[in-house]
Amino acid sequence: MTKVRVSVMLKDGVLDPPGKAIGHALQTLGFGNVGEVRAGRVIELELDEADAAKAKAQADEMARRLLANLVIESFTTEVLS
Amino acid sequence: MTKVRVSVMLKDGVLDPPGKAIGHALQTLGFGNVGEVRAGRVIELELDEADAAKAKAQADEMARRLLANLVIESFTTEVLS
Repeated sequence: MTKVRVSVMLKDGVLDPPGKAIGHALQTLGFGNVGEVRAGRVIELELDEADAAKAKAQADEMARRLLANLVIESFTTEVLS
Repeated sequence: MTKVRVSVMLKDGVLDPPGKAIGHALQTLGFGNVGEVRAGRVIELELDEADAAKAKAQADEMARRLLANLVIESFTTEVLS
């Protein structure tokens, strides 16, 4: 079993209303030094694959085919264990 | 400016229907070796704070006060740059 994390973020330039809302809420709570905020998704997967490089390649493929919308989103994958 | 990433995941044992749905969809797409899948959120923040340790401490505080529901969620923070 290999654990992989896929992080999916909106591309730069794509409007991110949830991020804006979070930034505004943090300002309201008194965190005055908050600048740009971007919100995204993270998906942690357990893969039945012992080889870390193969597991990462599989997660990349999953992100391209299902987890990310590559028109407006970019993703990164990392092997956790 | 320091960039910080806050990852928020449901705690172990808390039901995660989106994660289950993603796992099922991946199986349907032919990724037969997918086990447990957990879905969460990621928030990337730019903080006007040069000291990385202070920026991380601020992000921890933001997560505790707004970004995570600590009853059912746990979070991790990491300084990106």
